[in-house]
Amino acid sequence: MKNASHRQAQAHTRIEAVMAEIQSRIASRVYPPGARLPSVRAQAQAMQCSVSTVVEAYGRLSAGGAVVSRPGSGFYVAGPLAPLALSELAPDLDRAIDPLWISRQSLETDVDVLKPGCGWLPPDWLYETGMRRALRTLARTSSTTLAEYAPPLGNPALRQWLARRLAGNGVDVAPEQVMLTESSTHSIDLICRFLLQPGDTVLVDDPCYFNFHALLRAHRVHAVGVPYTPQGPDLDAFASALQEHAPRLYITNAGIHNPTGATLSPIVAHRLLKLADTARLTIIEDDIFADFETTPAPRLAAFDDFSRVIQIGSFSKTISASLRCGYIATRPDWLEGLSDLKIATSFGGGRLATEAILAALSDSGYRRHMESIRVRLATAMDTTLKRLAALGIQPWLRPQAGMFLWCRLPAGGDAATLARTCLKAGIILAPGNAFSQSQRAADYLRFNVAQCADPRIFEVLAQAMAG
Amino acid sequence: MKNASHRQAQAHTRIEAVMAEIQSRIASRVYPPGARLPSVRAQAQAMQCSVSTVVEAYGRLSAGGAVVSRPGSGFYVAGPLAPLALSELAPDLDRAIDPLWISRQSLETDVDVLKPGCGWLPPDWLYETGMRRALRTLARTSSTTLAEYAPPLGNPALRQWLARRLAGNGVDVAPEQVMLTESSTHSIDLICRFLLQPGDTVLVDDPCYFNFHALLRAHRVHAVGVPYTPQGPDLDAFASALQEHAPRLYITNAGIHNPTGATLSPIVAHRLLKLADTARLTIIEDDIFADFETTPAPRLAAFDDFSRVIQIGSFSKTISASLRCGYIATRPDWLEGLSDLKIATSFGGGRLATEAILAALSDSGYRRHMESIRVRLATAMDTTLKRLAALGIQPWLRPQAGMFLWCRLPAGGDAATLARTCLKAGIILAPGNAFSQSQRAADYLRFNVAQCADPRIFEVLAQAMAG
Repeated sequence: MKNASHRQAQAHTRIEAVMAEIQSRIASRVYPPGARLPSVRAQAQAMQCSVSTVVEAYGRLSAGGAVVSRPGSGFYVAGPLAPLALSELAPDLDRAIDPLWISRQSLETDVDVLKPGCGWLPPDWLYETGMRRALRTLARTSSTTLAEYAPPLGNPALRQWLARRLAGNGVDVAPEQVMLTESSTHSIDLICRFLLQPGDTVLVDDPCYFNFHALLRAHRVHAVGVPYTPQGPDLDAFASALQEHAPRLYITNAGIHNPTGATLSPIVAHRLLKLADTARLTIIEDDIFADFETTPAPRLAAFDDFSRVIQIGSFSKTISASLRCGYIATRPDWLEGLSDLKIATSFGGGRLATEAILAALSDSGYRRHMESIRVRLATAMDTTLKRLAALGIQPWLRPQAGMFLWCRLPAGGDAATLARTCLKAGIILAPGNAFSQSQRAADYLRFNVAQCADPRIFEVLAQAMAG
Repeated sequence: MKNASHRQAQAHTRIEAVMAEIQSRIASRVYPPGARLPSVRAQAQAMQCSVSTVVEAYGRLSAGGAVVSRPGSGFYVAGPLAPLALSELAPDLDRAIDPLWISRQSLETDVDVLKPGCGWLPPDWLYETGMRRALRTLARTSSTTLAEYAPPLGNPALRQWLARRLAGNGVDVAPEQVMLTESSTHSIDLICRFLLQPGDTVLVDDPCYFNFHALLRAHRVHAVGVPYTPQGPDLDAFASALQEHAPRLYITNAGIHNPTGATLSPIVAHRLLKLADTARLTIIEDDIFADFETTPAPRLAAFDDFSRVIQIGSFSKTISASLRCGYIATRPDWLEGLSDLKIATSFGGGRLATEAILAALSDSGYRRHMESIRVRLATAMDTTLKRLAALGIQPWLRPQAGMFLWCRLPAGGDAATLARTCLKAGIILAPGNAFSQSQRAADYLRFNVAQCADPRIFEVLAQAMAG
């Protein structure tokens, strides 16, 4: 009897020890709120005790409310729930190269801050007169346009306009293949929801638009970077990535590449599509900079006829970012699934933004506006290149058009350090590694030539580089 | 030797049999494109063969391209990718009660169609004069407002306005706790992204707004319905659901409940929060119908001070659905995570919609407009109740305010059948089971009294019920 009660006491102590250990791990967030505890068997092995000890410990923790059992699924740390902190998904990321931090900085509008790292034009470069005219017209429009939800695919006239513009770029698409969204980012987000599951792999260019990284983090998928060359993605690396990672999706830019300003060559486009075909890869081509091109680069969608290419875009870089409107052009059989997802997650769009954008686009001034913007950008690019050259900062290539310059610092320069220093002087830079999956762009910066007019930027840069 | 080669041949045949079986399952979409194949061990057990046979079969299918191996993850059916078809996630759902199908029908604007089942006011009931005035003002606004992205949390002045309105409902909240979104649905979507993982369980009212079902399907989480009573959710059922399902979230309406028109009693609110507290449950309270109330019902957020209640809302039911603008009010420590998700998935909002809404709200006409709408709705409710009574259709309760009537058909009536019949005559109904997780509302319909002015609705209903 004595022995039995001794054994019982020992078992009791073991259970309590295991409980204490688990409670301490919960307290220190080794097991964060909402996390699944290791299986009973794995825990027993890890803690070198019997399965029954763990069962008993989990059971008591569950009775006490620290742990919740979900039948068929296991034991979970009780709430407060552990929300999805995108920042915690990349905890080691230096704030200066954290995509979300950079976006946040750029979106906070403090008039005293200069933003050579920002990804869009200053407001007075956008199509202001067109917007004002459109708003005056809309003030007199029908009740329906003023008050109603848009139909599931969005404004039919704007979808027709888009189909015509795509045709102008050699992309043959029916208006029925076009769905309007709130933005380019919203377009990619919907496609990710449609095609991806957590744990999938997605190829991106290295470097690429930094918010792609944040967006993919939000989908809990792995991003794999493919080095970008002046003619497009490095095809050998692309082929290896297909082989090694079996990705479901590749996200890239059409036309002018962000951040490098490079454009895809026809031969790379053709070979890329052959590789994609063999691997049954879907490609999202973000055509957001279409209207900045002087000589249109080849569109993957034009080669492929939408069998595996999805084209997206928006008007936030040319007309206005204040009225949200983007689009998805894709194969006809995917439209219903995509629009179901749009309705389920945002209950469709509004009418006013699309009507305003359509009015601005239809107006004869828009073409002239974009002509003048292209000239203005070319001039700003010359000036910025000269000012950067004076600091020993060299472009990776000289873009044919657009607003971006992807530049290398003189030997030994570290863009993240520079960004931190310049931020103190009210200047927001875009350090290379924010764009780079491989983190091999520590000595690069992206400049937006339209945001580089103020000479103070270069004075502060010079001081920061010297200091 | 003979025996060995015989055994080899047998093994060969077994491998081919397994391959053939898997290929047939792929062809018939038992294993749909992109799906993970059962683990080698599970497959071996299921097919009653050796593990090595399955390994060999998977390997050969992989070499042939029908199957793709992903290191560390398993074997997957090769693409074309299997997109997320929300409709396929509930394949047995009758189209007439499919939330997505009903939304789609309501959003398609055919002027000849009558929509007594629709969830919003006709366009000329919304705040048209305020919108026209706001657009005229905005045509003269700054370049920044016309062209720039909004800051991460959205228009500060509108967030202040919202904090003041919430204070009027007894909800104490700082403007820093409010983030603007594109819509109520977008608000819930962001919160789901923030708090949920695929496979989680979410409680909803039974019946509830049908798009909650579609939204939760898009997040691949399980919805569990809690019966709704005239005073709020059935607390015994709520407590059992907490016990049984350990849900992470409960989504409900503040004020006027959709579809029933019921309002939460203070005692139910208090007990509900106590249950939620014990279970560490987060609650989303959708306050979209706030301005329709004559006597405000208690707000969960007012009792709870945002420790576990998140309040959301929008202006699409009162000012305009054409300019998208919603909000989230929540505990301060969740704002950054939520705004990171907003930026990652939609790159923030636009300025114009929020400025237009703010202008309309600030304008002295808005209060008068809503007063007149409340009177108009009360009159329309009387008329609709009478017309429905003449058909033997009775309300579950008589709502204090709002646009919805949750009505029961005479004995033996089936709302889905009725909806199909009426659709042929150009009348869109909202059958009860679209709102009901348990599918126990087959004899219910939701009517929107503001969309019931046309007597043809009741003529067609009478004919359909007779036929």
